Amino acid sequence: MLKVPQHQVAGHEAGVGKLGPLVDESGRFYKPLQGDERGSNEVAFYSSLPVHSGIPEHIRRFFPTFYGTELVEASDGSGLLLHLVLEDLALGRVNPSIMDIKIGSRTWAPEASEKYIEKCLKKDRESSSLPLGFRISGLQIYRSKELGFWKPGKKAAQKLSTEEVKLVLRRFVSSNTLNDLDSKPDCAFASTVYGGSTGILSQLLELKAWFEDQTIFHLYSCSILVIFEKELALEGKSPGAQIKLIDFAHVYEGRGVIDHNFLGGLCSLIKFIYKILTAPSESKIEVSAKADQKNLTASDNAVVADLKNLSDSDNGVETDQKNLTAYDNGVVTDRKNLPDSDNGVAADRKSLTNSHDGVVDDHKHITYSVNGVS
Amino acid sequence: MLKVPQHQVAGHEAGVGKLGPLVDESGRFYKPLQGDERGSNEVAFYSSLPVHSGIPEHIRRFFPTFYGTELVEASDGSGLLLHLVLEDLALGRVNPSIMDIKIGSRTWAPEASEKYIEKCLKKDRESSSLPLGFRISGLQIYRSKELGFWKPGKKAAQKLSTEEVKLVLRRFVSSNTLNDLDSKPDCAFASTVYGGSTGILSQLLELKAWFEDQTIFHLYSCSILVIFEKELALEGKSPGAQIKLIDFAHVYEGRGVIDHNFLGGLCSLIKFIYKILTAPSESKIEVSAKADQKNLTASDNAVVADLKNLSDSDNGVETDQKNLTAYDNGVVTDRKNLPDSDNGVAADRKSLTNSHDGVVDDHKHITYSVNGVS
Repeated sequence: MLKVPQHQVAGHEAGVGKLGPLVDESGRFYKPLQGDERGSNEVAFYSSLPVHSGIPEHIRRFFPTFYGTELVEASDGSGLLLHLVLEDLALGRVNPSIMDIKIGSRTWAPEASEKYIEKCLKKDRESSSLPLGFRISGLQIYRSKELGFWKPGKKAAQKLSTEEVKLVLRRFVSSNTLNDLDSKPDCAFASTVYGGSTGILSQLLELKAWFEDQTIFHLYSCSILVIFEKELALEGKSPGAQIKLIDFAHVYEGRGVIDHNFLGGLCSLIKFIYKILTAPSESKIEVSAKADQKNLTASDNAVVADLKNLSDSDNGVETDQKNLTAYDNGVVTDRKNLPDSDNGVAADRKSLTNSHDGVVDDHKHITYSVNGVS
Repeated sequence: MLKVPQHQVAGHEAGVGKLGPLVDESGRFYKPLQGDERGSNEVAFYSSLPVHSGIPEHIRRFFPTFYGTELVEASDGSGLLLHLVLEDLALGRVNPSIMDIKIGSRTWAPEASEKYIEKCLKKDRESSSLPLGFRISGLQIYRSKELGFWKPGKKAAQKLSTEEVKLVLRRFVSSNTLNDLDSKPDCAFASTVYGGSTGILSQLLELKAWFEDQTIFHLYSCSILVIFEKELALEGKSPGAQIKLIDFAHVYEGRGVIDHNFLGGLCSLIKFIYKILTAPSESKIEVSAKADQKNLTASDNAVVADLKNLSDSDNGVETDQKNLTAYDNGVVTDRKNLPDSDNGVAADRKSLTNSHDGVVDDHKHITYSVNGVS
């Protein structure tokens, strides 16, 4: 039987009389086909993926698996409706922390209709897309078994200021998010989630290298989904940090030009993540002053999910209570109890440095060339 | 005495009753201060450059030297007017080929006025800025002593299609541009102008590396000027290929965010140049069919400068006539007469490969990391 996905953070949500995506128990995600050209565009995009020889294997893994389309009962009770059948990205994930980040300062293609451009431009200007080159379309951060998820309102998330985005990206990988927003994120999981040779930054850099080269697609209004499991990190296991590209209703042919709009936004996001890894305790961010997080604390926008929301979960697992206790008062009280891989941000710095070797070398080379001239 | 610059390719030009920049004989370029905040913005930007510790030496050389402001007689005869005094980038250049490339798909800042945004957005959409991430604001390509420069109209240059931009970027470094547009550019100087460890691509990559990191400035409506001297290339000397950043009337503070708009456009330009170097005789460009170059052949836009325009030049030098003769009929007839460094595009490929070593290494490393996961 199809049911409403537990871990959706952005987009229309299914409900009584409301059309939204559904999931089954075999790991498939059913996305209702939008009636206009957006639906057919997305089907066309997913269908074309396997035949594009220009997409290398290590990039293909960033796209969800596509299983075709299927007529299923729509979530709003309106009867049978064509759905895209995709990989359920939350399958097997226990209490995943998730961010949906819409990439690009511009969410509209030059070829789009006047009406659509006007609508998008307004939203791009009102949100953080224009200043930052991306906007957080939605997110959930797992806190603990008792407290469940911290899930700020979607409207609020899209309008975050630069300082608020910094804060959210740090809180996303912090252990001290249990009680309120009035504490400085400790970035305890930054090295294992963002850093390392298989971490988020490394994956984003792979994507960047491809976007510097590929002229096949221009992806407008496409998101990068960032997922990991905090409980695994607390147990000293790999947190399963992963990025996926989603939402392809506004894909256009590249026609010999790179997707400079997506690439610019991606590089901006990379810079934010990179900064957290290289300066985890940046003093400029005074998060205990709530002044800078007006969008995050606005009570009419913020939703803090508690365990009630998770009560129908069949995913609950017992985690190492000792590790959770260690974080209980919002700061790390007993580092000795934490697994080695969690020993602060510096631990995995080596891997990060490694994955940047090429870039550093390149820079050295360029400097060298310049010296050669003078 | 101040006079009208010989090699201006974009922007307002000085003339009878027309306000424009002037040059003196000591190598200074006088740019009239725009009356509104644009003038003061540009002065503020140039004045702030020396105090920014975040600009490394190898990047500083891309900015023109600034000598302050000075009251001089305006070119339109309106009397004394404050001018920015800058380095004359054409000083000492004999018959330079020049492109003025405005970088960024968006020429307006989020903070700009509604009226200004509306004006810029219209122009960005009508020009190649939106699809390509940059537009060619103007250019001149030196052909020969007899024929002078090929200088298409500025309005036409700004609206070039992707195929036309490819064509112009190839023609810019070709020897067979003597007669008409009906021949396939041979890219004879691509390796010495675009390629090599000190060539245009290498300089653009240095700039790119800095823009991936710097959060000091956002440069809207700023151009990259690309200059070289074809006659030097023909003589087997270094063609003096150089990029400079110009036009800073719309600079804003970065406030912790990279200039994703400039970076995206820059990466798009880099991809075009890179493609010329790696596939100099790309078969897809059928330039003998004029269909693809409507903007370049429109007779009301195109201006082909001849020697008359150069008659008051005191820069004329005698070049090796033998080399010019070798190219006389528009194709290379006698390669033996050409200096070694001009032997086709492949000659300097080694240097190009070198300057890319870092990037390639990086990619290898990433691939390696991925393999490590699976």
